[in-house]
Amino acid sequence: MPQDTPAMQIDCATEPARYRHWRLACAGAVATLTLDVDPAGGLFPGTELKLNSYDLGVDIELADAVTRLRFEHPAVRTVVIRSAKENVFCAGANIGALAQASHTHKVNFCKFTNETRLAIEDASAHSGQRYLAALGGTAAGGGYELALACDWIMLIDDRRSSVSLPELALLGVLPGTGGLTRLTDKRKMRRDRADVFCASEEGMRGRRALDWRLADEVVPPSAWEAAVAARAAALAATSDRPHPHPDPPPLAGEGRVGVGAQGISLPALERRITDDGVAYGHVRIALDRARRRATLTVLGPARVPGDLAGIHAEGAAFWPLALARELDDAILHLRFNEPGLGTIVFRSEGDPAAVLAFDELLDTHAGDWLVREVRLLWKRVLKRIDVTSRSLFALLEPGSCFAGSLAELVFAADRSLMFSGSRAGDNRTAATLSLSPLNFGAYVMGNGLTRLTTRFLGEPLSVERAQARIGAALDAAEAEALGLVTASYDEVDWDDEIRFALDERASFSPDALTGLEANLRFAGPETMETRIFGRLSLWQNWIFQRPNAVGDEGALNRYGTGQRPSFDPERV
Amino acid sequence: MPQDTPAMQIDCATEPARYRHWRLACAGAVATLTLDVDPAGGLFPGTELKLNSYDLGVDIELADAVTRLRFEHPAVRTVVIRSAKENVFCAGANIGALAQASHTHKVNFCKFTNETRLAIEDASAHSGQRYLAALGGTAAGGGYELALACDWIMLIDDRRSSVSLPELALLGVLPGTGGLTRLTDKRKMRRDRADVFCASEEGMRGRRALDWRLADEVVPPSAWEAAVAARAAALAATSDRPHPHPDPPPLAGEGRVGVGAQGISLPALERRITDDGVAYGHVRIALDRARRRATLTVLGPARVPGDLAGIHAEGAAFWPLALARELDDAILHLRFNEPGLGTIVFRSEGDPAAVLAFDELLDTHAGDWLVREVRLLWKRVLKRIDVTSRSLFALLEPGSCFAGSLAELVFAADRSLMFSGSRAGDNRTAATLSLSPLNFGAYVMGNGLTRLTTRFLGEPLSVERAQARIGAALDAAEAEALGLVTASYDEVDWDDEIRFALDERASFSPDALTGLEANLRFAGPETMETRIFGRLSLWQNWIFQRPNAVGDEGALNRYGTGQRPSFDPERV
Repeated sequence: MPQDTPAMQIDCATEPARYRHWRLACAGAVATLTLDVDPAGGLFPGTELKLNSYDLGVDIELADAVTRLRFEHPAVRTVVIRSAKENVFCAGANIGALAQASHTHKVNFCKFTNETRLAIEDASAHSGQRYLAALGGTAAGGGYELALACDWIMLIDDRRSSVSLPELALLGVLPGTGGLTRLTDKRKMRRDRADVFCASEEGMRGRRALDWRLADEVVPPSAWEAAVAARAAALAATSDRPHPHPDPPPLAGEGRVGVGAQGISLPALERRITDDGVAYGHVRIALDRARRRATLTVLGPARVPGDLAGIHAEGAAFWPLALARELDDAILHLRFNEPGLGTIVFRSEGDPAAVLAFDELLDTHAGDWLVREVRLLWKRVLKRIDVTSRSLFALLEPGSCFAGSLAELVFAADRSLMFSGSRAGDNRTAATLSLSPLNFGAYVMGNGLTRLTTRFLGEPLSVERAQARIGAALDAAEAEALGLVTASYDEVDWDDEIRFALDERASFSPDALTGLEANLRFAGPETMETRIFGRLSLWQNWIFQRPNAVGDEGALNRYGTGQRPSFDPERV
Repeated sequence: MPQDTPAMQIDCATEPARYRHWRLACAGAVATLTLDVDPAGGLFPGTELKLNSYDLGVDIELADAVTRLRFEHPAVRTVVIRSAKENVFCAGANIGALAQASHTHKVNFCKFTNETRLAIEDASAHSGQRYLAALGGTAAGGGYELALACDWIMLIDDRRSSVSLPELALLGVLPGTGGLTRLTDKRKMRRDRADVFCASEEGMRGRRALDWRLADEVVPPSAWEAAVAARAAALAATSDRPHPHPDPPPLAGEGRVGVGAQGISLPALERRITDDGVAYGHVRIALDRARRRATLTVLGPARVPGDLAGIHAEGAAFWPLALARELDDAILHLRFNEPGLGTIVFRSEGDPAAVLAFDELLDTHAGDWLVREVRLLWKRVLKRIDVTSRSLFALLEPGSCFAGSLAELVFAADRSLMFSGSRAGDNRTAATLSLSPLNFGAYVMGNGLTRLTTRFLGEPLSVERAQARIGAALDAAEAEALGLVTASYDEVDWDDEIRFALDERASFSPDALTGLEANLRFAGPETMETRIFGRLSLWQNWIFQRPNAVGDEGALNRYGTGQRPSFDPERV
């Protein structure tokens, strides 16, 4: 079995000027994202990305573009995704790259692409940026799964272009990047038709694709460009996206939607990666490879802007935004480049009152487009943490600032441990935990509930009790009594208890921990989103370990060789 | 890796006289199920079932008892599960047996025990038989998971007896028989506490077990027996179980609850297993090993009883009951003993009108305790089919009788194909499909919806359209137009189309098919039940393939050797 993914550093930070595979063009309310994969631009040496097939590197650019569209191009109300290649929209994930990747990389890659697809749906649902998949050629596998994440799927009716999910027939794996779940849950396709469709190597086209709910519109080539433009405009009209400048109000008239739009630009992250850590402006990661853990310290804010104009003036430097971008990059760095570190320990340093002051800004100006985007980015970063397969510990120590939005890290953690009182000779203030209104609605998890509601499924009154203490600096005793932290220890016990808990964690099976945490973190209801991660991806992970897929005679390795795969027929 | 599970036939049919591990005693409204595992009675040679640890054989007896209690002991309103062993309730699944089992057997074993746990909860929710876990000693792992399936958990407070889920710490796997899901979803334990509990090898006891929602009642040894009896009586009082003889009405008085109770006995199934098939009274299985499929033919009923008295007089011979028991056994036989047969083809032969007449009886007398049990058994058997990891095809041919309850097999199938018209020279009536009221509520799936509602999630009006045609003999054209079958073919195409579809199915990766079907069959909402199969079990399946669990140095194989397991630290 090939398990030799090159031990290279994967960098998830990029910018449009560096894109090799996508082109982003904005014109008023409509942006166009054009997929034009550079076959020689694969992340791993030796893979050729033919027919707009993609690897992680292609998706990193897409994820970047989706985020930038929200911050840098607030006037955009429709994003058209299309292909620059003749007759092909996208052939899906590159099989050569997938087959040669380690199991860990396969899983991480799929998780990331799932997050990107969900970010597209989030942009539509919450930011009023509608996505239009303009399939001017065949969309196969992951290519069609990308289209499924869009609001509207247009398929050219040229008797040739089809949509298909040929994974079962060709590769012995699943359409695992949301494909199956979106067929049944989003497009609500009849299950037996989905079965027929997924067994079909060639897929479906034209009228049948429409009748079977696989596309929303089929258009002959002669009318294609006009129809795409008309549909983009129609989708833009459904957007609730506020005009970027609330004052003065936007001018009337379709053509003027973008007038006055003033996004903020997202500069490259300042980041220093060394052998034993990563340093950002507001985040520091210290790596302890011997103990197999990373300590991620969040630094609280300094100066608080006075008003909305101040927030806009700061732009990407606005502390919650800068921090969210750094946290996101830090989590991805740990996922992709430090798979051997099983535990992430969240720490913080700073002034809790200043954090709460930022939360107040985020609360007061929730209707402003930029503030809305900052809150939504925080929501997505926290969700990325929720599905990160590392043990998460939060340590609330003297001098820490787990307040409001930062307290979500405490609630995202598998365990949170709080220092009671101070250390002798330490003049930092005793640890406190503070809540803000944002803990009660702004940052819902994938299951549709806040972390506190999920935490207190069995005791909903505890949510109300916590809500009644918004703004208070809760000490260890009160935080524990309110059920907001797992346990607290004073100076006598702290060091031993923390050391024991972390060492014990490191002694457990990494796989069993992954499974345990993925169950305990998502109590209660499931949504399409949690089903994508919790049902579909999991079956894919299982299949990705089976010789029928990844063995020497398995379907992934036999693909393209002309030899048929050889299957163990036993049904599990 | 040990993959050498003995190629023995596993028989899921048993009866109390043949139990080796359980004793069933009924006294009025209270039954006691006593676990007293025979260490030498393991299903696989060489395993010793110490400390009331169990293997599949032990659970087959439990499943049998749970079913018999409903049919044979209708007066029972509380079932007390306890142990005959000193200081131990149950040590969980036997690790030796688990470690030596093939991956396929592990998965099948866990699926079956999950079904048994859910059958306990179904008996409580729908048949008014409450389950009381009387933990007079330690309940560990699967032993505690069994308790979690009960309505009420009593734990003896003797400073020694604990409840625990030590799978993570000791075995590198999950509490995968519903344990994690029931902690978070049923008992609604706080997630960080669940994390602490699941990392604890020794578990929790006494007051803390109560405070952490792990037990509902802790009782000192001196008060134990009286408290168990009192709780059993209190639970019995919450039962809505109708008196088994509706006429005359039950006598008043607690002690008389069981007076007049008259269950029906479930005799051993008549079954003939040969090399190429299994024959029951109403079910025939034909095995085609070369094509890797089993054809399961259901035979329609002959004589229809005239009234409720007639149903009771027939007892276990009542056609829907006899058929459900046979179908259940047939599915389990295929699961355990024919893992290489990837497709089950459902066929039927008989008079659709007679099937509908039985459905009318089941509908008219829904309030009768026995009819209720027959309907509930059908529901459970159909659910067992839903989670069976084989491709399911239904063929509706001339002479078939897919009507009402039997039509659920069509809706459970991944694809249903219908013969249009008749064959030349064949005097059987053309295939029809008929619906009864039972298709619209009696047989909900694990997701809480009927198969038709799940099928038509995207077009709810189709459910109403189908409902308007209850009782009609729908021909192929109409069944297809109503969306009730996948496709229909006439004599010209039928043989080729069926052959092609089945051969194509057999050519796909068995693993990818399992994952595909498990996604497409369960569209829409998730429940605790679907989460147990779809999230928890799936993580366990994944872990059950990982070297950290099943490798030579993995935790399952190192358990009990005194050597610590050796883990690959990489987090996936």
